[in-house]
Amino acid sequence: MNDTYLQNTPAGKPGPTPEIIRIGLFGLGTVGTGIFEVIGKARNAHAEIRRICVRDISKPRGNDIPQALLTDRPEDILEDPEIDLVVEVIDNPDAAFRIVTAALCKGIPVVSGNKTMIARHLPELIELQRRHKTALLYDASSCGSIPVIRNLEEYYDNDLLLEVKGILNGSSNYILSRIFDHDEPYAEALAKAQKAGFAESDPTYDIEGFDSLFKLIIITVHALGAYVSPEKIFTFGISHLDEADIRYAREKRTKIKLVAQVVKVNPDEFTMFVMPEFVDRSKYIYSVDDEYNGVVIRGECYDRQFMFGKGAGSLPTASSILSDVMARRHGYRYEYKKMGYLDIPSYTTDVPLKIYARYSTTDLPSLLPFREIQESYVSPGYKYVVGEILLSDLIANRHLLDAPDTFVSNFPRFFLDRD
Amino acid sequence: MNDTYLQNTPAGKPGPTPEIIRIGLFGLGTVGTGIFEVIGKARNAHAEIRRICVRDISKPRGNDIPQALLTDRPEDILEDPEIDLVVEVIDNPDAAFRIVTAALCKGIPVVSGNKTMIARHLPELIELQRRHKTALLYDASSCGSIPVIRNLEEYYDNDLLLEVKGILNGSSNYILSRIFDHDEPYAEALAKAQKAGFAESDPTYDIEGFDSLFKLIIITVHALGAYVSPEKIFTFGISHLDEADIRYAREKRTKIKLVAQVVKVNPDEFTMFVMPEFVDRSKYIYSVDDEYNGVVIRGECYDRQFMFGKGAGSLPTASSILSDVMARRHGYRYEYKKMGYLDIPSYTTDVPLKIYARYSTTDLPSLLPFREIQESYVSPGYKYVVGEILLSDLIANRHLLDAPDTFVSNFPRFFLDRD
Repeated sequence: MNDTYLQNTPAGKPGPTPEIIRIGLFGLGTVGTGIFEVIGKARNAHAEIRRICVRDISKPRGNDIPQALLTDRPEDILEDPEIDLVVEVIDNPDAAFRIVTAALCKGIPVVSGNKTMIARHLPELIELQRRHKTALLYDASSCGSIPVIRNLEEYYDNDLLLEVKGILNGSSNYILSRIFDHDEPYAEALAKAQKAGFAESDPTYDIEGFDSLFKLIIITVHALGAYVSPEKIFTFGISHLDEADIRYAREKRTKIKLVAQVVKVNPDEFTMFVMPEFVDRSKYIYSVDDEYNGVVIRGECYDRQFMFGKGAGSLPTASSILSDVMARRHGYRYEYKKMGYLDIPSYTTDVPLKIYARYSTTDLPSLLPFREIQESYVSPGYKYVVGEILLSDLIANRHLLDAPDTFVSNFPRFFLDRD
Repeated sequence: MNDTYLQNTPAGKPGPTPEIIRIGLFGLGTVGTGIFEVIGKARNAHAEIRRICVRDISKPRGNDIPQALLTDRPEDILEDPEIDLVVEVIDNPDAAFRIVTAALCKGIPVVSGNKTMIARHLPELIELQRRHKTALLYDASSCGSIPVIRNLEEYYDNDLLLEVKGILNGSSNYILSRIFDHDEPYAEALAKAQKAGFAESDPTYDIEGFDSLFKLIIITVHALGAYVSPEKIFTFGISHLDEADIRYAREKRTKIKLVAQVVKVNPDEFTMFVMPEFVDRSKYIYSVDDEYNGVVIRGECYDRQFMFGKGAGSLPTASSILSDVMARRHGYRYEYKKMGYLDIPSYTTDVPLKIYARYSTTDLPSLLPFREIQESYVSPGYKYVVGEILLSDLIANRHLLDAPDTFVSNFPRFFLDRD
């Protein structure tokens, strides 16, 4: 036995050149360009980009991209019988949905990174995969290069899973990291994030928690077998954060992180939400800094697994797309196995949270139905309460939190520690 | 569209009771008992332990284990046509090899956690799987509950991977953590590890690095498609560590960790070894404390992914076994895809390392062929050198390091930073 043994066994021996996967690519922005580069680098990928559909064919592209590949007619890809796989990485979720559904209806498998589109339409997309016996893979949609979807679907394919909790958005985490680790004011941190390309020119999507929300919805389907539509889930971002909140968090020796979580609260029910949370040093996600993502998977028996990596960016996202492309070479598809379980837990918002709520003109202590107020602070420039409130009551009164002078942040594990 | 939508789709609807996987279990020690418990807890596992083969049938077992399941005759499992899967978790690697090969030769798929057996015999075991068209899964063998093998095989199924590096042994890490984080002397830390059940009564296997070595060999097959047999790989543990080494590491603001690594040093070659390493605060593995394992996967494009979790213990290992059992329900097998790549890198030891070497009676500076000595310190009680040496020269002179008054530790990334 020696170290070349395996290379001489029949299946290890270089056989005939493996079949090439021929890709039709939709979108040539940051991620699309990254895919072009990554597929060029991965010598064993046996994948070839055959056509690229872009919105504006006259826009100048990098020299590496042959002009002949470009088209602005989707049908040049969707009606080409020599295309084996569609890769969709365009920005617009509605256009993405049209393209992805058109491809699936023709039986063409699709790899997509569009979390908004997938989170909104996942039930229909699952149905289309079934009806047309084809596949839609989207690991890149959640946490970029961290293989969270594939692991939840395949490795944590059992009902021991209790919780998935993490930092799913790199831009907002970058801003919070500049504030808490580098003492920068919010506006400066946001400007830096935009300059570094982590936040869009309209940063609402990242900063208000919607990006995290859409990822959480997708994760929940693969974690627990249950789909919950976006409008039913409490989502609150970090745009209202101010110096007083930062000071409060620091006094408690915590950092504020924008946390997305889905948690089984009892054997039959789970809850989920996206909101700022006070995170202390003992938690894995405390040290997820800058633009990184970190996900904690907790289960009976295996306790906590922590996965950490680059959640966004051109090449990390593109390499995740490559993983899905290569999985298609082996016919891989999500089987949504947990949806077939006999006892899928139900979504509940009837869980108590302990929250910090800062307010000014909107009188939150009297307007929000707190079950108990544990702390109350009033000074001319700064007012807050810390109290217990049902998540359902927070959702029912979500409009009160739209005022820019309000901010809420969660104390972790309150509903669990009570059990 | 609502959150129960998917539960009403055809494939989501509870169908006829799914087929049960009937398991023949070999071994009822810590892990075997854990498997019995975990399979009982996982309501959707559809797995049933049909027979348990133990060495001593008269030994008293927990009340939960029905006596009728026990046998001491392997053939009661191997010749039972109603057994679908063998799960092997016995201690003895030779006996494990006999059982696993017997099962594979009969076409019975096997799930095993025996890293020693697998690392020693992997080429033959792969050949047996091919010849008998069956499967051997062993994610539990490397890093317990961390899904490192499955991810390397499936998700990092491309040639962008550059490095897998980590803390793969919980017992030795527990001891180092007691020393560096809790200021305990070595002997006390070892005694505590033994008391906590992390180190065997003969701790050589963990402490001398062999456990990490065997895991590293398995990881390398799935990371790069190459098998290297144990005797070719430099392995040095922590049993010679003394107070002077600890002080030296602390002065450099590092911790000593027992690190296993496989690294591509150029596009055509990789190297691998297990040895203590000075790890500074900026590294992910710096904060892998106590009995935990942590693995960093680095690649072109996706940079670094970090996976962290419990690497050993009854229930974490058992839940990893459960993941493999459930994967068999879907016919999963490792395809050893990277072994079919056209350009598998070759193993090389012709790489320069920068090491710290403490010595006393064995005159390491004159006996070891250092290419350059950068530091040299001599005092009556403490002598060391820091110098550059080829890994191949370290292997050729491995016997010099057997003297208990010697200790070596690696400075990370020396061969990479030179590029």
